[in-house]
Parts: sequence; C-alpha cells; structure tokens
Amino acid sequence: MKTDTLIATEISEKINNKTKPLGALGMLEKLAFQIASVQNTLFPKLENPHIIVFAGSHGIAAKGVSAYPSEVTPQMVLNFISGGAAINVFTRQHDIQLLLVDAGVDYDFEKSEKLIDAKINYGTRNFLEQPAMTAEECSRCFEKGAELVQQVKATGCNVIGFGEMGIGNTSSAALIMSKLLTIPIEDCVGRGTGLDDQQLAQKISILSEALKVHQHAGNEPVTVMQTFGGFEIAMMCGAMMEAARQDMIILVDGFIASASYLCALQLFPSVKTNAVFCHQSDEKGHRLLLQALEAEPILKLGLRLGEGTGCALAYPILASAVAFFDEMASFESAGVSNKSS
Amino acid sequence: MKTDTLIATEISEKINNKTKPLGALGMLEKLAFQIASVQNTLFPKLENPHIIVFAGSHGIAAKGVSAYPSEVTPQMVLNFISGGAAINVFTRQHDIQLLLVDAGVDYDFEKSEKLIDAKINYGTRNFLEQPAMTAEECSRCFEKGAELVQQVKATGCNVIGFGEMGIGNTSSAALIMSKLLTIPIEDCVGRGTGLDDQQLAQKISILSEALKVHQHAGNEPVTVMQTFGGFEIAMMCGAMMEAARQDMIILVDGFIASASYLCALQLFPSVKTNAVFCHQSDEKGHRLLLQALEAEPILKLGLRLGEGTGCALAYPILASAVAFFDEMASFESAGVSNKSS
Repeated sequence: MKTDTLIATEISEKINNKTKPLGALGMLEKLAFQIASVQNTLFPKLENPHIIVFAGSHGIAAKGVSAYPSEVTPQMVLNFISGGAAINVFTRQHDIQLLLVDAGVDYDFEKSEKLIDAKINYGTRNFLEQPAMTAEECSRCFEKGAELVQQVKATGCNVIGFGEMGIGNTSSAALIMSKLLTIPIEDCVGRGTGLDDQQLAQKISILSEALKVHQHAGNEPVTVMQTFGGFEIAMMCGAMMEAARQDMIILVDGFIASASYLCALQLFPSVKTNAVFCHQSDEKGHRLLLQALEAEPILKLGLRLGEGTGCALAYPILASAVAFFDEMASFESAGVSNKSS
Repeated sequence: MKTDTLIATEISEKINNKTKPLGALGMLEKLAFQIASVQNTLFPKLENPHIIVFAGSHGIAAKGVSAYPSEVTPQMVLNFISGGAAINVFTRQHDIQLLLVDAGVDYDFEKSEKLIDAKINYGTRNFLEQPAMTAEECSRCFEKGAELVQQVKATGCNVIGFGEMGIGNTSSAALIMSKLLTIPIEDCVGRGTGLDDQQLAQKISILSEALKVHQHAGNEPVTVMQTFGGFEIAMMCGAMMEAARQDMIILVDGFIASASYLCALQLFPSVKTNAVFCHQSDEKGHRLLLQALEAEPILKLGLRLGEGTGCALAYPILASAVAFFDEMASFESAGVSNKSS
C-alpha cells in the first residue's frame, strides 16, 4: 500500500493529464480523487452498490409533527416490499441492490425475504415524556447497523448508501442537529412531508418543549441519539461508522441521513474521508446542516423524500467520475496540445 | 390527440397520486411533466437518445482569446473519433448515441464513418476584421443542422443533446449573449478553458473592440450569428429549431450551447417548450444567461468543458423522471394513506 501523499500526488497527476482543461470536470474530479484515495489505487472501481433503507416508527408522530399519520410508515414499508416506491424505481434503474430493514416499525410484518427483521421495538417512545430509546436499545441499533454493513461488505460491495422511512423523523433529525451543533431549533425545523404555516409553528413549539424536557441530558452524541433519535436514525449511524471502518464509500442522502452522519462524525471522525453528500434536500434545516458539515452536495434537485432517493440519483455521477478517471485519454496518449503555460 | 389543458391536468394528477408527499420529487416532477407534455401522453418514453457534437475553428482564436492553441480543435476531434474524450466516456456509460460533426474545422480529416463531414469552411473569419461568416455560410449552417436532426429523428430518437468543440468559442458565445440580450460584454466573458487575470482582461478588450467594429450591424439574431458565431454554434442553433419542430426533447449543455439556444429562441420561440437545461457551467457568463432565459439547470457540477458533457451527465436524471412517472405506485394502488387534508 502506498503512502497517502504518494498516492494523492499520483491521483492528481492522472486527473490533470486527462484531455480537458485543468479542473474542467469540476465536482467529478473531486469525486474521482476521493474514491481513488479511499480505495488507495489509481484504478478505483465501484462494486456491487447497495442502498439500505431503515424504517422506524416514532412515538412523537402521534403528537401532530407530521402531515401524514403514523401508519404510513408500515404502509410505505409494504410499498417498498412490493417495489412501488421511488427508491425501488431508482435502484432498479441503476442496478443498485436495495435492502429493506425494519429497524423498529410499529407493525408485525409477515416474514419476507425482502425485509430484514431488525426490529428493536414497536416504535420509539414519545420524547416529550421520556428518552425515545433506552440506552440498551440505542446500543443495539448501533450494533445491528454495523452487522448489516459487514454482511453487505462480504458480498463484495464497496459503495453503500443509506435511506430511511419514518413518519415524524424530521423532528428527530432537527433535534439531533440542534443539540449536537448548538443551533436554535427553529433554524433546524422544516415542513417535512408538507406542513402548513400553523402546523410548522406547532412543530417548532413541540420540539422546543422536548429540548426543555431533556435540557440536562447533555450534548454527548450517543445520549442525544438515545433521547431524540429514531431506531432507523441510530441504526444508520452505526452502519455509517462500520462502512468507514470497512473502507467503503458512503452515500449520504438527505436531512435525516445527514443527522445520522453528524452523530457518526462526532463519534468516529474518519467517517468524513469516506462520505459523499448526494443531495441537498428542500427540507429547511438541511442546507444549514450541510454548511456546518462543510459538505458540498452533488445534486440539488429540490427533493424532500428520503428513502435514499438522493443516493440513487447521485450514483451515476459517481460512476461517471470513476469512468472518466479510468477511460479518458491523456494529452500524451491522444496527441493533444496542452495549455501553453 | 388530447387538448393541452386536458393532458396537462391528467399528467399533474398522475404525478400527485404517486406514493410521495406532494411535490417531494422536486425537479423530477417538473421534468416528468415537461416530457409527458411534449410527447402528449401519460406514458412518455425516452427513445434512442443522441448527442451531436459540432466542431468548428475560429478566426479569432489566433488573437489570444483562449488558453489553448487553435490546433487543439482538430486534435480533440481526433480524440472524439478514437473514443478518448470525456463525452465518449459519458455517452458510453449511458448508452447515448454520439454523432461527431465537422461543422468547419481548419483541418482535412481522413474520411471516417465516425465523423460527419458538414464542413462549411476551414474555420470562420476573424470578426475583428469582418463578419465571421458570409450570409450564405450562416444559412448553410442552419440548414445542415436541421438536416442532421431529421436524419437522427428518422432512427426513432426523441431526445437529443448538443455539444460543441471549438477553441475560441466562448468568445463567440459571449458576443452573441451580449448583443442579443443587451448585456455589457464584461458580464458575458469568462475564463474559458483557463485564462489568468491578464489574459481575461485582454479577452474583454478584444471582444469590446469586436462589438465596436460591428456596432451598426444590428441585433437581429441571424445577423448576430453571422457576425460573431462559429460554424458549430450556428449549426447547433439550426439543429435545435428542427428538434423542436420534430417534437423532440432538447438537451441544452453549457455556455456555448445556451448561446445557440438563445438565438434559436429568438427565431423560433416554441423551442422553449422542448428545452431542458442540463448543467450550469462554471463559465462566468452562463449563470447570467440562464437567469435571462429563466432556465433552471438540472445539474451544477462546476464543469466547464462543453462537448455535450452536461447533457450526458443529466440524462439519467431525465430517465429517472420518466421512470418514476411510469413505474411508481399510486396511493390507491399501494394502499398508502394520503395526507390528512
């Protein structure tokens, strides 16, 4: 294995010798550099891409923080299983393996080879009254997330995205963001699946109350996750840390996934090396969160859906980055005159 | 064929009944609406996609407006032919047919089935001294562009992108933009393939001089094209108008392609209905040009390469738009509860 400095220089030289003006492939050049660096090679490959969608129910969802009723969480899981959701369409389009995980949905699903049973509990508790999870539940989420990634890694996968489904989970994400970054909650809260002005004000009021209830709980990331997190958010956090340990490229989706990532980053900073930010969501807090993370998203398509859809849509751009790095001619090989400088 | 209003209502209803919050697929919903509207159907398809790359040499290129020497234009055409350029890589990746057109390169290419000979002349004249083309040359460009699109349409293609190669052509594009939109030239000029500050100042000075030389030529789009355009820019303009006449979806690439589009729009306004703006280039004038066109680009990847690369990279997003519209379940079919409103 080459030293980091040596390989970094060689990767940059390879990019700069391609038949294009210096830097003219913009974001694709950054992605090629990152992927080659993570894989420590001049011949990177994206292999057997996966997206895992974690689903979980939220105790807070009954309190009017979402435009949709809580039963939409299991209904959408069934929709994923039958292949009718947006993430099914986009993963089929790009030959990405889709894994569905019941991280803690308030529903008894029939056994199916299309759904991984990792149910921690039948939904989290209402964090207006008590922490959303017990310490033991939170810990099991992290472990289960890591275990799932190890299984995916064993299939030869080296690039993995994470999506989520959980009515109410923009509330959890906003609270995690507010607490871990010390940003006022009103800057972290958005309309989620489609609140109107009055409902948004109510959501902010409820989340402010939740912060007050747990004001003495501290800012330690595991505690914050246990207090406000959904099972799907915590499991994704554990999965991201394991993906970094396994030298995989991590595709970060929208607002909820970025909250998982934020927690992962504070617990295991080197996750940053492997993370690619796929999409800046229309959800209000996401832009601010990405800024705080110094993250430059590949896409800004105005999506606010989750499910890992941003990962799936950004994937061909990553593939393009690897393809130009691998296949484009150099100035020398093509006999093209370089800039006269 | 249904009336526009009827089909528009039906398309919107189909989008809104998909299992996602209203509007949650952002740009993809707009694209699905546009493509279905152009095709006048609830079952749109993208068929046999093509990208045509027009190449041309520029008389002005000898005057120090580019970081690269003029011979790079034919060298890059040879690179396209041998499959080593960025556009080759990205069109291969997405199964897009690539057509290469010599619109007027200052070089005698060997006959090749991979290069369409549409040479108008061996490069344009230097517009500091005289119009870049004769009226007859400009007219032949428009006709040839239209003829090529008719041939592509005959293969069953209904979505077509256009790219270009021509050292010096950001100068032509900036002049066309400045003249047709009455925007000061310094706001239209950028670093092209990589000018430094001093070279940029020189480019602005040269282009200001060119405007002065032709100050009495008027703002009529064909005259402006004839005066400042490259053969590749004019041929693309003719091609875009024909693609609109043929009800094809038009993929607009970066700065140069947008200047072609601007001219096409003034000559044939309904081109707007069919145009999709693929990428906002890093070239300085492009953001302003897109604003003036009220165009919302799909991608902002910081590319400044041309060749149609933005079209190729945006293509899978269009395919995703059609795929969700075609394949996603509705609330009713999936048994998912809709928003309680």
